[in-house]
This record gives sequence, C-alpha cells and structure tokens, in this order.
Amino acid sequence: MFVKNAWYVCAMSEEIGRRLTPRTILDAPIVLYRTQDGRPAALEDRCVHRRLPLSKGRLVGDIVQCGYHGLEYEVSGRCVRVPGQTTVPPTACLKSYPLVERHGWIFIWMGDPARAVQEAIPEFFKLADDPAWCVLRGILPIKCNHLLILDNLLDLSHLAYVHPSTIGNTPVAENALVGTKASGDRVRVTRVMTDVVPAQAYIDLGGYNGNINRWQITEYVPPGFYLINNGSESASRGTPTPERIEGQSEWGFQVHHGITPETASTTFQFWQIVFPRRAQAAEDRARFEKMPVLIEDLVVYEAQQRAIECLSERGREGAVNPVIAIEADAGLTHGRRILERMLREEANGGA
Amino acid sequence: MFVKNAWYVCAMSEEIGRRLTPRTILDAPIVLYRTQDGRPAALEDRCVHRRLPLSKGRLVGDIVQCGYHGLEYEVSGRCVRVPGQTTVPPTACLKSYPLVERHGWIFIWMGDPARAVQEAIPEFFKLADDPAWCVLRGILPIKCNHLLILDNLLDLSHLAYVHPSTIGNTPVAENALVGTKASGDRVRVTRVMTDVVPAQAYIDLGGYNGNINRWQITEYVPPGFYLINNGSESASRGTPTPERIEGQSEWGFQVHHGITPETASTTFQFWQIVFPRRAQAAEDRARFEKMPVLIEDLVVYEAQQRAIECLSERGREGAVNPVIAIEADAGLTHGRRILERMLREEANGGA
Amino acid sequence: MFVKNAWYVCAMSEEIGRRLTPRTILDAPIVLYRTQDGRPAALEDRCVHRRLPLSKGRLVGDIVQCGYHGLEYEVSGRCVRVPGQTTVPPTACLKSYPLVERHGWIFIWMGDPARAVQEAIPEFFKLADDPAWCVLRGILPIKCNHLLILDNLLDLSHLAYVHPSTIGNTPVAENALVGTKASGDRVRVTRVMTDVVPAQAYIDLGGYNGNINRWQITEYVPPGFYLINNGSESASRGTPTPERIEGQSEWGFQVHHGITPETASTTFQFWQIVFPRRAQAAEDRARFEKMPVLIEDLVVYEAQQRAIECLSERGREGAVNPVIAIEADAGLTHGRRILERMLREEANGGA
Repeated sequence: MFVKNAWYVCAMSEEIGRRLTPRTILDAPIVLYRTQDGRPAALEDRCVHRRLPLSKGRLVGDIVQCGYHGLEYEVSGRCVRVPGQTTVPPTACLKSYPLVERHGWIFIWMGDPARAVQEAIPEFFKLADDPAWCVLRGILPIKCNHLLILDNLLDLSHLAYVHPSTIGNTPVAENALVGTKASGDRVRVTRVMTDVVPAQAYIDLGGYNGNINRWQITEYVPPGFYLINNGSESASRGTPTPERIEGQSEWGFQVHHGITPETASTTFQFWQIVFPRRAQAAEDRARFEKMPVLIEDLVVYEAQQRAIECLSERGREGAVNPVIAIEADAGLTHGRRILERMLREEANGGA
Repeated sequence: MFVKNAWYVCAMSEEIGRRLTPRTILDAPIVLYRTQDGRPAALEDRCVHRRLPLSKGRLVGDIVQCGYHGLEYEVSGRCVRVPGQTTVPPTACLKSYPLVERHGWIFIWMGDPARAVQEAIPEFFKLADDPAWCVLRGILPIKCNHLLILDNLLDLSHLAYVHPSTIGNTPVAENALVGTKASGDRVRVTRVMTDVVPAQAYIDLGGYNGNINRWQITEYVPPGFYLINNGSESASRGTPTPERIEGQSEWGFQVHHGITPETASTTFQFWQIVFPRRAQAAEDRARFEKMPVLIEDLVVYEAQQRAIECLSERGREGAVNPVIAIEADAGLTHGRRILERMLREEANGGA
Repeated sequence: MFVKNAWYVCAMSEEIGRRLTPRTILDAPIVLYRTQDGRPAALEDRCVHRRLPLSKGRLVGDIVQCGYHGLEYEVSGRCVRVPGQTTVPPTACLKSYPLVERHGWIFIWMGDPARAVQEAIPEFFKLADDPAWCVLRGILPIKCNHLLILDNLLDLSHLAYVHPSTIGNTPVAENALVGTKASGDRVRVTRVMTDVVPAQAYIDLGGYNGNINRWQITEYVPPGFYLINNGSESASRGTPTPERIEGQSEWGFQVHHGITPETASTTFQFWQIVFPRRAQAAEDRARFEKMPVLIEDLVVYEAQQRAIECLSERGREGAVNPVIAIEADAGLTHGRRILERMLREEANGGA
C-alpha cells in the first residue's frame, strides 16, 4: 500500500524526451514523454484494447500510437482514433497523471488529480539552480521496500557502521545529542555532536586538523521527500547555536532525496548532493563522486529486504517492521506513524 | 484450462528420432521417441515409481527404461519389468498419447483416446507435400498464453503497425472490407482491400508498381489450427470476385499455424509458409526467410503477457481478456467464444 | 517440516574461521564463526533491531557487531551493547545453537538446547581420523528436498542404472539378496550379491578378474546420518558369512553422509569416502576422485525435484511421495516412516 494523493519524483529532466519511456511508479505502469512544446506527459502504459504497453508504440507529433493496432491517444489520455472504424468508444481513455517540472526534476501526482496542488512540492531541490552551489545527482534503483530507506534516513547513527571510511565514525553513533520533532505531517531529526574527532571526509574536504562540532538535520516531508543538512566547524567555537545549525557553518553540504516506490519490493532513490561553490569546486566534486556512500546503503537495504522476504515466506513474520526498538528509532517511528495515518486517511476517503 | 479432446501439433517430424525427447504439451510432461519401425510414440514423462522423467533414461529397442531403477515400459505405457522382482504391479502404467504423422508434422491427441478420430485433423498442412509449392517451417516457443496468438491471427489489421517494413501498410488497417463467419466450430475472417498501395513485400515479391487488390482469408479450426491465405492482383482487374479470393490470383502465399499451449503462460507456434514454386524460387525463399514477421509478433505477445501478469499479480485484473472491444475484434471474439464453449462442454463431459 | 531436535552436519571444520559465514539450516538463517579460542559458534543471522544479517557485520574479538547500527552480541546470543544508549533491552537476544566439532565436521543442534546430548551423534565419521584409512570429503549443495536423497541411499539398486560406468552393473539391481531391519530409530538395509560379475570400479580398484561376492550395508540414523559399507571378495570364497559383511573382506570402502536440509527444496550433502590405506593409496585416491557418482545422483535428484514441483504447481499431486511402490522400496519406506513419526512426536511436544 502506498500513499497516492502525493507528489513523488518520477524522473530527472534529462531522462525524458521525444521517446516513449516506460516507468513503474507505485505499482502503476506509466509511459513518460515530452510533447512537441517540450512539456513532460505521463499516461497509463497499457492500451485499453489489448494491453500492449504504449511504450512499445510510437510518438507521432503529440499523439501516442499503439504499436499493435494503431489506436491513437492524445496527451489527456483520451483515445482519438481507432484505425478501421469511424467512431471511438467513449470509454477508451487512459489515466493521465499531473506532472510538474522544477529544478531538473519531474514530479508526478499519483492520486486524485483534483487534489494536485503544486505548492505541496517541498522546495528541497531548488539549490540545484543556485549558482552559489555545486550539484551532483542521479537515480538509483534499489531492490527493497521504501520503508527501509525511511528507516535509514531518519536514523543517521548508522554512518558510524555503514560509512566508516568516509562520512561516519564512532562519535556519530555515540556522542550525538538527538532531537526529534514532528509538526503536522513533517518530521525533523537533529543530531548535534560537540567537540568530536572528525570523520575522514570532514578531514579531507573540511580541512580540519582538530576536533569539530558537527550536525545532521534531517527534514522529512512524507511520503517521499528528505533533506539532510550537514554542517561543521572547529570545536573551538563552542557549542553551536540554533542559528548556526540551520546552515553549514565552516564546512558542510546538503543531501536531497526523492524516495519513490516502484513496487512493494523495489524503490527508486532520486538523489542530489549540493555543496557551496568555492575555489576548489572541481576537487570537491571529484571527492564527493568517489565516496561509495549510496552503494554502501544499498547493500544494507537489499540484504534487509532479502532477510525480511525469507522470514515472511516462511510465515514467521508478516510485516516489514522493526522488532526491537532502540532509542535512535524515535525519528523513524514518527515517520512510519505519519505514513500509516496518511494511508488510513486515504483508505477512509479523507484528506 | 485447455481443450483436451483435440489434436494439436506436438513436433516437426525431423525433431523426433531414436532419442527420448521431453516436451510439455497442455501442461503435461511428455516423452517423444520413435519405435524401431519408425513410428512416433508419446508417453507420460514421469516414472510411476519415483517421478524421474523417463526422458532422462534410455531407449532399448522399443522399451523405455527409467534411468533411476530401471523400470521398463512398452509403447502402450504398460510397465513390463521391475528389476529385482518377478512381478509388476498391475497399476504401473504410464499414460500414452495417440499420434498421427502427416506432411512432416506430428499431431497429438491429449484427451480421451477413444475419441481420437484422424479425420478431425484439418488438411491445412498438406501443401507442404505438393511439388508445386515451396515450404518454410519452424517451431517458435513464445512466452505467452495461447489466446494472445489467437487474438493476433484473427485480426490481421495489426500488420499495419507490427509489420510496416514488410507485409503491412496503412491500408491493411484502414481500407479493408472485413467479414466474419462462424460455422459450427470454425471461424473464417475475410479481409479484402481494393485498389490500395502495395506493402513493401508485395512490391519486392509480387513485382507490383501500381495499386493492387489484396486479400487475407483466415480459417480457424479451434483450438489450435490456422490457415491464412494471402492473395493479390493488379487493381486494374476490378473488385476481386469470391472465386479469386479463394486462391492467390497474381501473387500470394499461405501461412499455416499449429498453436499449441505448453503451459498457461507459454506456447509453441509451429508454423509453415508455402508459396507457389516459380522460376525465382530460391530468391523467393531468401526473401521470406529474411522477413522478421514472426519475431515482431513475438515481441508484442511477450510484452502483452508481462503486462497482463503484472496487472493480475496486483489484483486489478484476473483474466487474459480484452477490455475495450473495437470492430476489428469480431473474428477473435468469435474464436474465443467457441473455445469457451468447447471448454464448458468438456467440463460437462459432453462432446 | 523438519525434525529439529536432532544433530545435523552444518559445516566442514575448514569452512569456519574468524570470518562471519552465513548458512541456512532447516530454513533458519545462521551465522557461523570461531571465537578467539578456536571454538565454533552459531547464532541466528538476523539483528533483532532491523533484520540485517549479522554476517554482513564484523567480528570484533568474540563480539559480533551488526553492520548497520553497531549492536553487539556475545557468543550466547545476548545483545551486550547498543551504541548511543546506556541500557540494552532485556529481550534483545539472538538464538544461539549448540555445536559439536568432531573428525573434521561441525554438528549443529537445531531444536531445544536442553535436549542436545552429544552422545546422540553417530560415530560414522571417525574413520577420517584413523591413519589406517584414507579420506575424501566435501559439501555438495543440491536443489532437492532431502527425502529424495533418503530414497536414494536406502535403495542402492539404483547403482545399476545411475552409475553403470563405475560402481554399478546389472547384478546390483537383479541379483541382490536384500534385507531390511528397523530397530528403534535406526534402519539397516543389507544387499548381498553372490558370484556375480564385478562392476568396473571393482575391476579397476579391487583388481578382480573373475566373479565376486559383493555387499552394500546401509545404516541410517534419522534424520540426517548415513553409513554405507561396501565390501567384496573373490566368488571362490563361497557365500559370505555375517561376520565378513561387517567389514570389507578383500576390497571395499565406506561412504558417510550428513544430509542436512537447507530449505524445503534445497539440501546440503556433506560426504566422506574412506578406504583402507594401502601401498597404492595415491592411485586409489585419484580413481575415487575421478568417479562422477555424486554428480550422477545430483542430476537425478534435481530432475525429480523439478518434476515433483511441476506436478505440485499444477495441483495434481501435493506430496513428495512415491506413487507406486516396488519391493526395493522397503528400506526407504521404513526410513520415511520413522521421520514421519519423529515429526509427529515433535509436533506433540514428545521426545
């Protein structure tokens, strides 16, 4: 089950052009393309007639033509022509999906189109358009349920054990002051470490040679958006103030994720890392590109997913749920609860 | 569910020899071989004792010997020897299947052997033995339910969109006069185009340089036999008469298919193309061999099958059925209805 | 369903060291390793917190540290540390499994640890430690239910048909005097052939040039241990006495198997062949190594398994059971009955 009345990232802008591109989002087969005026479009990827995916067909002007019997659909999803006959059955209509394109990303609305309000898309990704920032981006398909990624992003203590060669070290798990705040549908987890040994990436990129203050602030906008602000400064500056942890202070970066379920057991991670542009921008970029962080997480996700599927097949455990909670679970527990409430509300027809 | 009291093609003659050859037909595991006098034989491919497929064993004279404990079966399926003991359990008997071999094809009867009447095999394939015709043949395993192939063969408008580089062009979908006739268990779909631009293969092989009349006559003998007669002539001859469309007129060919379910999601297409022998027979053959027609259809079938399986897994649609009917569906709707009636009659024990 | 209150082989000694090694036994995910003092240990391979297999983590001294959030477990399975908090939830405990290491093999107890009595491990494998014997050993993963291997090892008539190039020939199936004896939980099948032509391996290794007496004595200790004593002698010695068939007489060897279910459809065969050390020991070993016997059996097992799964999927047959019994099934029928009784007793909470 997925929350449908919500925006999700469905593609990077450069993935979609004048070609019929299939993609499954929330278990729904979708064909993505651009009309002649360059706007992205998304239709159900199944001909109403005999179920051939329309992505196997042709884009003729702004018409999507089925590759089997030539049925033609306009961008609204309406079938406008059936070769060999003069009328078109009035019910011959594909579902079409609202799209918004911003900051190099394409967002899709999977539920009731009447509720698709553009303002609901968080502005996390906008730094990609700011010349004061450098950006790295990508799409990573992962063989796991999306909740396993939520668990990861709302408990960053894992950096100590999953990413010890780059952005993690023991103090991240052991010396952080952790705060969790849920307001409305949002969750914010703050993790502040004061006067700790810097992790390797902070030495390499931040240039520290003594202890530092460091913070990780995760903002979660359910169901699928995450912003992680990472900042640091020399420990000599004393306990960081609330104002300082809203920025990066001496050195830091932000990570933005669009986590979009493909199916119940596969998920797309659309990711973007941004860091302030400075003289050594090319070197910064090369260092960020070399870090294996996303792949280290992927290895964990996919091993968890296989473990959970094994247990589930064997009837010992049904749900993708934690078994024993620890203190660090506070953030993800909040996040999962909000998702459950959203699902319940959708099931009841509420907002 | 499959119609069992019926003949199906199970092999090309040259596939079966003095070797135990496994093949699954209508979900039943079968071992095919020839006895010493050259006659084809078909037995259930599971030893009654411990389920080893007999195709893993040995053919010793006309005896099939299991490769595990040496149980021996005669061509009737009866177990005639159990090594190490003097008696044979009277129930130790494999199912054996009636076979008929004709025109280079082997036909199998999957239901009650008492009802296996050779005359029920249609004579579609006999042109393969006629020296006035050339023949191309083959077996193509396809990952789809057999009904998707029925849909294709009873609505040839698809040539315009699936085979546009060879035998199809727009007029095939848009300018055909289509007639559908069901009589008894047979369906006949006639498609006649008058004064149309020839498709590429008709230019290359038929040698036309102006408009033509063209026809496609599909005869369907359920559950598994199809004959498609393709004919054409210069448009200057005026509307083709009923007599002319029974033959090929100036240029044409026939296609014969034995469509045999392997499982619910896989099917064998046994196919044969025949064309009148003329001076340039070698060149004709080379051109027919080069056409990607069967593979183009296979790509559609397998994409449809995956689409339907996805929908079905997700509980949104159970059956392999069309959703919105168009006029061109008349023939396949007839064909599917006859199959459904045959299945009902078999379920009720009728003929 | 598996018998759990029993010892099974889970590894060869040399497979397990100071590395976290995952292995599934009776459908349970287990991580195997050695503590610093060299003793083998086995824990449930799932962190209690978020299900990551512990085999993806690290071995730090005698502590198993989870690779996700660093939870630490001691060899008893108890969680002794959760990074970032001062207390450990008292229920944070992995299942740990009793192990015994003997003769180069590691044995695991999968059920109630209170019942794990070392004396219940049969002494089959001890000849591996006897300098008078040579040994070959290995682990073979097989894609079949373990009962198919039981069937094989308790009916050695199959040598005539599965291993005709080495240890089998027709007399093994046709001229054996077969006896089956069940006492308590054990089954013993004796097969004695008198004055028969030797199989090829008996010519090559035993050096016979005339007829021989030959015997195969299988001892089965359910659920997972098998000993097969193979002996032979010149036929001129007359019918072999009960004493002689307890040994190998002029030439022979023993085979020891630990048959351990991995899942319902996959099994580990831990095998050991021992033969008396003599002058030509190197040549003997080379000949044994070259025989394809285990692979010939594997081919049969896996073909049976696929056949049974096909039948089962199609709803025609549920159980992995013989359909028609022959006389040679006496031993395996005994063996299967004992297993069924053990399963019933475990289900009822009995011994």
